[in-house]
Amino acid sequence: MRICVYSPSMSIRTAVLGASGYAGGELVRLLDSHDGFDVVFLGAHSHAGGVLGDVHPQLEGGDRPLGSNELVKEVEFAFLALPHGSSASLGHQLRQEGVKVVDLGSDYRLDSAARYGEAYPSPHPFPDELADWRYGLPELFDVKGATAVASPGCYPTAVLLAVGPLLAQGLIEPQGIVADCLSGVSGAGRALAAEFLFGEVADGVRAYAVGRHRHRPEIEMGLEQLSGKQATVTFTPHLVPMPRGLLATVTASLTGEGDPGEALAHAYRESPFVEVIDRPPQTRWTVGSNKALVAAVVDRRQNFVIAQCAIDNLLKGAAGQAVQAANLMVGYDEADGLPRSGWMP
Amino acid sequence: MRICVYSPSMSIRTAVLGASGYAGGELVRLLDSHDGFDVVFLGAHSHAGGVLGDVHPQLEGGDRPLGSNELVKEVEFAFLALPHGSSASLGHQLRQEGVKVVDLGSDYRLDSAARYGEAYPSPHPFPDELADWRYGLPELFDVKGATAVASPGCYPTAVLLAVGPLLAQGLIEPQGIVADCLSGVSGAGRALAAEFLFGEVADGVRAYAVGRHRHRPEIEMGLEQLSGKQATVTFTPHLVPMPRGLLATVTASLTGEGDPGEALAHAYRESPFVEVIDRPPQTRWTVGSNKALVAAVVDRRQNFVIAQCAIDNLLKGAAGQAVQAANLMVGYDEADGLPRSGWMP
Amino acid sequence: MRICVYSPSMSIRTAVLGASGYAGGELVRLLDSHDGFDVVFLGAHSHAGGVLGDVHPQLEGGDRPLGSNELVKEVEFAFLALPHGSSASLGHQLRQEGVKVVDLGSDYRLDSAARYGEAYPSPHPFPDELADWRYGLPELFDVKGATAVASPGCYPTAVLLAVGPLLAQGLIEPQGIVADCLSGVSGAGRALAAEFLFGEVADGVRAYAVGRHRHRPEIEMGLEQLSGKQATVTFTPHLVPMPRGLLATVTASLTGEGDPGEALAHAYRESPFVEVIDRPPQTRWTVGSNKALVAAVVDRRQNFVIAQCAIDNLLKGAAGQAVQAANLMVGYDEADGLPRSGWMP
Amino acid sequence: MRICVYSPSMSIRTAVLGASGYAGGELVRLLDSHDGFDVVFLGAHSHAGGVLGDVHPQLEGGDRPLGSNELVKEVEFAFLALPHGSSASLGHQLRQEGVKVVDLGSDYRLDSAARYGEAYPSPHPFPDELADWRYGLPELFDVKGATAVASPGCYPTAVLLAVGPLLAQGLIEPQGIVADCLSGVSGAGRALAAEFLFGEVADGVRAYAVGRHRHRPEIEMGLEQLSGKQATVTFTPHLVPMPRGLLATVTASLTGEGDPGEALAHAYRESPFVEVIDRPPQTRWTVGSNKALVAAVVDRRQNFVIAQCAIDNLLKGAAGQAVQAANLMVGYDEADGLPRSGWMP
Repeated sequence: MRICVYSPSMSIRTAVLGASGYAGGELVRLLDSHDGFDVVFLGAHSHAGGVLGDVHPQLEGGDRPLGSNELVKEVEFAFLALPHGSSASLGHQLRQEGVKVVDLGSDYRLDSAARYGEAYPSPHPFPDELADWRYGLPELFDVKGATAVASPGCYPTAVLLAVGPLLAQGLIEPQGIVADCLSGVSGAGRALAAEFLFGEVADGVRAYAVGRHRHRPEIEMGLEQLSGKQATVTFTPHLVPMPRGLLATVTASLTGEGDPGEALAHAYRESPFVEVIDRPPQTRWTVGSNKALVAAVVDRRQNFVIAQCAIDNLLKGAAGQAVQAANLMVGYDEADGLPRSGWMP
Repeated sequence: MRICVYSPSMSIRTAVLGASGYAGGELVRLLDSHDGFDVVFLGAHSHAGGVLGDVHPQLEGGDRPLGSNELVKEVEFAFLALPHGSSASLGHQLRQEGVKVVDLGSDYRLDSAARYGEAYPSPHPFPDELADWRYGLPELFDVKGATAVASPGCYPTAVLLAVGPLLAQGLIEPQGIVADCLSGVSGAGRALAAEFLFGEVADGVRAYAVGRHRHRPEIEMGLEQLSGKQATVTFTPHLVPMPRGLLATVTASLTGEGDPGEALAHAYRESPFVEVIDRPPQTRWTVGSNKALVAAVVDRRQNFVIAQCAIDNLLKGAAGQAVQAANLMVGYDEADGLPRSGWMP
Repeated sequence: MRICVYSPSMSIRTAVLGASGYAGGELVRLLDSHDGFDVVFLGAHSHAGGVLGDVHPQLEGGDRPLGSNELVKEVEFAFLALPHGSSASLGHQLRQEGVKVVDLGSDYRLDSAARYGEAYPSPHPFPDELADWRYGLPELFDVKGATAVASPGCYPTAVLLAVGPLLAQGLIEPQGIVADCLSGVSGAGRALAAEFLFGEVADGVRAYAVGRHRHRPEIEMGLEQLSGKQATVTFTPHLVPMPRGLLATVTASLTGEGDPGEALAHAYRESPFVEVIDRPPQTRWTVGSNKALVAAVVDRRQNFVIAQCAIDNLLKGAAGQAVQAANLMVGYDEADGLPRSGWMP
Repeated sequence: MRICVYSPSMSIRTAVLGASGYAGGELVRLLDSHDGFDVVFLGAHSHAGGVLGDVHPQLEGGDRPLGSNELVKEVEFAFLALPHGSSASLGHQLRQEGVKVVDLGSDYRLDSAARYGEAYPSPHPFPDELADWRYGLPELFDVKGATAVASPGCYPTAVLLAVGPLLAQGLIEPQGIVADCLSGVSGAGRALAAEFLFGEVADGVRAYAVGRHRHRPEIEMGLEQLSGKQATVTFTPHLVPMPRGLLATVTASLTGEGDPGEALAHAYRESPFVEVIDRPPQTRWTVGSNKALVAAVVDRRQNFVIAQCAIDNLLKGAAGQAVQAANLMVGYDEADGLPRSGWMP
């Protein structure tokens, strides 16, 4: 039993912009049970003016009002869960106001205008600020004390956790990497599109954006920052008929140095969330938690490693990882408010 | 922010027997994050001798050993999540040892040998003790301070929450009640049976045990205890291709007294978990939480009320409700350790 | 082995309007393998100008052009699979041109302006023609030789097959009928709406239009035409996370005359598609075929019958039944081109 | 319209052994509507002595008896849909009796004792007969007039259709091939195993048998027979929560010769079932038909091709392909009795 004294004044006044989406809803759920952040503002786009219960009937406190996704001055911290292109300006303004920010979107993930141009057709409105944002994958990149963090995409999170340490330690070749990834439907967000109707998604699988998905430059950036080598990845994302979960299956050539399983276990030995296991990770074992499960199998015939990583795309792949970074930014324990047990079935 | 002082000596030493099933796994997950219960023993049947991670890879602390489902003397509290027939003797013994018990199974739910005989072919081994167990539906029955509680079945929970107050207050007739209920597959437990293979369940619905399901006498018992009148229910359970969730659609004749929606809202006005809403409740809005959503629509042409209740069958319909009752048994706040926000999607 | 001589000139030149929807796609699939109808025109709304493969990549002959949903003069037969309100005028015109029509929509199902007004807010544009259309449920209503047939809704099909013969033969009371029905998502058509996104539908169930669904007057009309008595039904439709399939669970008071199971078996003894079975019918046993499975259980305690009917909502509940009626309209065998085996899993 | 004369005496008397499984059920469904084969015997294992309706309630003719899976002398043709190890002896006997055989199992797929030993621990009982069986993938291997055909596994079918012609024509390197494949649950058959319960499969994905699946030697055999070169494949199968469907995503190094898309289109230009398309193939577009959809995308940065193939694992991956081979064995049209339109949704 705990004897608790509440000190609300010590909680950080926090805004969640983009609260109406799936990641936004999970942010609210996590922060509501986190003692260190006090959600005082919820922003939305088309649902602005309504209440939280309109868009998230599953959440407690459904009568909380939804404001607009705009600059909120009275907060100390902001989480942005907005579509691509919508957080560049807001992120810029919030930083100017001295508000700490975690952006779950893709606007500030890439570290240079050149790389940004590789992924997106329009130029970045604040290219000089790209370098100011830290890449919020705390197991592989330092975000302690940062004031602006770009939270990784769900695919890059899983691929980098699977092979980042192997490349950093020289166990695999930086070229010829094949990343076939499977994502639950919530990875596409909550947007209304015919291709995401139940009748079109249930009972089938498909790849999409083959050879041209925008997470590919982000994956390569992460690998290069970790290893100092130019990395090339053939990345094929697939849509799977399940609400959430993401599995990366990454095949890469071994250099002959070291044992991949041991290297991964060593890399994550102090991580509260990444667990290296000796059987194929299932997404169901991670859903509901901020965990990542990683495993590696060697195919000696080809001298390949098959490294896999399973996560909950909305938690470790989005809202959970954002809270994890936020904890480190403000000096809380990395794991505060983040579940390490998932739910089954 | 809360400043907390942990007093582990004040936690109640607790056993979970039947930890390997779905309800058992949810009990462990809930109790692990509950400050007032300290899970010190996990029991299993065929997995005894193994570890928790063998059966619940989604849970933290997977290296905890699984003992047998047998009398555990060193605990103060025990949750039993065992198949029908397996908790009668254990429940009897635990009470003799002074251990407080919540039985999630059906052995002690019915209040008399006669009613037990209506549902089960074999006689109860301890018929005289049936009356000693309280029926653990805290919104409708008092369990404060009880030492032995039989936690309701998932179907009776939803049906009684939907129409219990209406019958108790004389708004509906006790005869002619029709309860068509829809349950996710976890309601059948984790037993290995061909009819629950993915290939047999996905993409289809079916009724089962039509006219002879064992929850029918339990529903009628609950209605009679609440109203003092003999109640008769035609109960048809259906299996739906979803992992969890339960929806009761109950149609009953109105007496002409009072407004059903208002009566329900009044009945649950102080309940932390039951919410009366004015649109059809969806199971997705409850999954992951201990909530029950209730709504009532009147069909004036037939003078019928259609009362519905949606719950998560593994939480409000099993593990969550068991913890809710346990809280009340030992004097904690009813809602301690129980999520009121669910997850979507 | 069959030795076949093709006589294309004997095939009936046929149009399918509304070919882009789910029912339209199934119509094309069925008619393509039916020797007696030759699909020469495909109509669509927003996809007019494209080809069949744009909307139905699963179908052979994807390069067939999609015209508009408008009057087609060069055909002898037309199937209309259009949204409510869109077939009234077309149906009127086609009949004037001497084209035989089966309308899968709801515009001509109700037999009078009064009943139509009970279901729809706007008046019918051709109220005097309502009586000219036959109701195309061939097991219960005669459509032989008809020139204009309104094909029943999926819910009325299942409810009427379950209890129509019981009411017609005086075995059940016409009042107090409760019909709780479960439908797969394709029952809502292919329209783009947030509530039908995978993330909103998967893993949950819900009722909708409680007490006010437009199929209720159609069900009561069918029952009254069969029995000559005024019937009253409380109808609650539910949405189930499966692509197709529909189960009606109908509870009604027995009059004391006759055995429901025997009466149903007798009623359908010569039907090629309706099978009376002695276990709860599963929708999976009907999916892919034009079959309806019917079963009845008596609850002696309440003197109720629980009658159930399972169908594939897109076949017996839509496209299959329309072809069945068309066969009878033009003098083919009722079962021509209609599968009696479904697929599993 | 066709005018047909039935000549039942011209139909081939046929047995389906292993009729109780999923592939067996689909064989019966296909053959029942095929004019050239007359199913006169159905064999089963644990259900022998019962009737077809016990195991396939979706099929017409449910009162047909189930015999044992044993030598049937009075037939001219037999389909074997049995677990691995169960068809070696039966296949041997049937051939001795002069019965034509298609074995859907894996006993006779590998062409030598050496290769068989690479996949299976026990030696083959009739190693000398392995070379007598033809490999029944008609688009790539000749089976016309054969008397004994081993029907390919579902994974090899999809992988070979995706890259077989590319390797045969020298467009890709035979080493370093990565095949990540996704299968619906019916690919595992209908066996009772906890890992295939709905509660364990729904809402999650997983790889299995990583680096050691028995289809890998079969894939490599096919590639070698097509190209005359030794091929090496890293094959990772994944289980996806859908009843049927299979997608192969194969990444391989381009040699620099030719255009992969054009080469595939040319290879399949006369195939009635394989269609080369210019967008990522979805399994839903093939389910219900014997179609295979193939597409290729080039990743110039790595000089890789990503070749994909989608099939219905129970049709083109099992029962459909078996019937396709049987048609060719006996001189029928390759496409007789095989649907080229699938069903959606």
